[in-house]
Amino acid sequence: MTYCVGIEVDEGLVFAADTRTSASFDDVRVYRKMHVFEYPGDRVFVLLSAGNLATTQLTISRLKRDAEDPDCTRSLRTFKHLFEVAEYVGEVLVASQAAVTDQAQQSGVSVQSTLVLGGQIAGERPGLYMVYPLGNCIATSPETPYLQIGESKYGKPILDRILRPGTTLEDAARCALVSLDSTIRSNLSVGMPLDMAIIRTGDLRISQQLRLEADTPLYAEIHDTWSRKLENAVRTLPRFPWEPPRAGDEAEERGPAPVTAPPRRMAARLDPGDEAGQQ
Amino acid sequence: MTYCVGIEVDEGLVFAADTRTSASFDDVRVYRKMHVFEYPGDRVFVLLSAGNLATTQLTISRLKRDAEDPDCTRSLRTFKHLFEVAEYVGEVLVASQAAVTDQAQQSGVSVQSTLVLGGQIAGERPGLYMVYPLGNCIATSPETPYLQIGESKYGKPILDRILRPGTTLEDAARCALVSLDSTIRSNLSVGMPLDMAIIRTGDLRISQQLRLEADTPLYAEIHDTWSRKLENAVRTLPRFPWEPPRAGDEAEERGPAPVTAPPRRMAARLDPGDEAGQQ
Repeated sequence: MTYCVGIEVDEGLVFAADTRTSASFDDVRVYRKMHVFEYPGDRVFVLLSAGNLATTQLTISRLKRDAEDPDCTRSLRTFKHLFEVAEYVGEVLVASQAAVTDQAQQSGVSVQSTLVLGGQIAGERPGLYMVYPLGNCIATSPETPYLQIGESKYGKPILDRILRPGTTLEDAARCALVSLDSTIRSNLSVGMPLDMAIIRTGDLRISQQLRLEADTPLYAEIHDTWSRKLENAVRTLPRFPWEPPRAGDEAEERGPAPVTAPPRRMAARLDPGDEAGQQ
Repeated sequence: MTYCVGIEVDEGLVFAADTRTSASFDDVRVYRKMHVFEYPGDRVFVLLSAGNLATTQLTISRLKRDAEDPDCTRSLRTFKHLFEVAEYVGEVLVASQAAVTDQAQQSGVSVQSTLVLGGQIAGERPGLYMVYPLGNCIATSPETPYLQIGESKYGKPILDRILRPGTTLEDAARCALVSLDSTIRSNLSVGMPLDMAIIRTGDLRISQQLRLEADTPLYAEIHDTWSRKLENAVRTLPRFPWEPPRAGDEAEERGPAPVTAPPRRMAARLDPGDEAGQQ
């Protein structure tokens, strides 16, 4: 499986993707699912992919070939509008699936892929599209400023709660990392390292690009502090009627959170044995 | 669909369930999915249900009938151990499905239900079981102190991050409410009102029971403040290398969060029109 998310806020676009591909539990590999097409000053695109890896690779290879061919009249470099690029990417995606569709149907393997395409062409605002396996697309909207592909449910609540068009680009990026971190923690089929790219409106190039390993200090710090922050947030939610009031009173008015150990990192302890484990 | 969660911590058990049942988008109703069997001083059980409503109702009716029959030798009141009760509930569940299995297979309707059973019998610790449609069961473990049924993915990350055996009963209850609130926000098939029950270890009765509507002050307050707390938590996560340091420095040392409006409750504004909506 996969988890990728693209976010569009007023300040620009954020892309984040995991890198785990799995044909089965015992066939797990690391592949990049974030693909960058950058023509600084003119246009910049990022593609996120979920689904069949062969289809994705063929699609990316064809997009690259066309873009590098100066005689090609239809490529990532030729269209004037992002929605036309999205349509074109959809066509290439459908063509990449078509080659093996007949054999696939017989074997029961899905050769479909779904893409998220975002970027900016000079003269337009940045935009973000989901390209479906049928080749059709939808864009983000101010009410739904993000698009997810793959294992999307675990990481959706944090996006729903935080993201608005006015969210800063960096807060949107932090939100994407938390969304990915939550998914990785709750689902084995999504895994490190993570890729992240940021396109600031008007930059017309990749403004920031990061590969985050589990031990990259920035990611490790986010991973370690997020659980503590959540735990503190849960603890300072309104009390139930039967609970005594909290020392120091009003949750919202409290000072710094008490420093607690990160959850799930308990000191070594005796194996409780089956007795405790089972009941 | 449905979302129910049962949590076992050292201090006792927490149960929470939504109440939306849907045969289809245009056939949505409110049904209780939390069922209480209370024999104060001797034993107490809570059942959470997901799946086919007819199966669940038949199962609950049979469990009640048996428990109220003083001559019945196998009922919720007769077993000495919770795992035996879980086995028995599994048997009743399988029998309730069996009556309609043949017709169901022809029509393509699933008549299966999955249950979460928790409670305490005098002389034992409290326990929590998942009862599968086949009638078999699993218990919680210290490493996995919760069980979910129904639309479980949205609300899983918060449980994974917060819950440990040492979590207080009320923090576990707050965590369950946030888990449900996140799911309701992200998935239409899970809806208000919510039912919650708490069994404190040794009470041998329902210690607390709540029905929470969207406008119940406690729930409304949790709903309103959680997003704000999350937003502040995201904003105070480590900065990216290219960002200027935060005013007031170290995120962890900061005082009370700046008061911001709850997300998604923006002032009325002009309709941006299709132009902005589409791109």
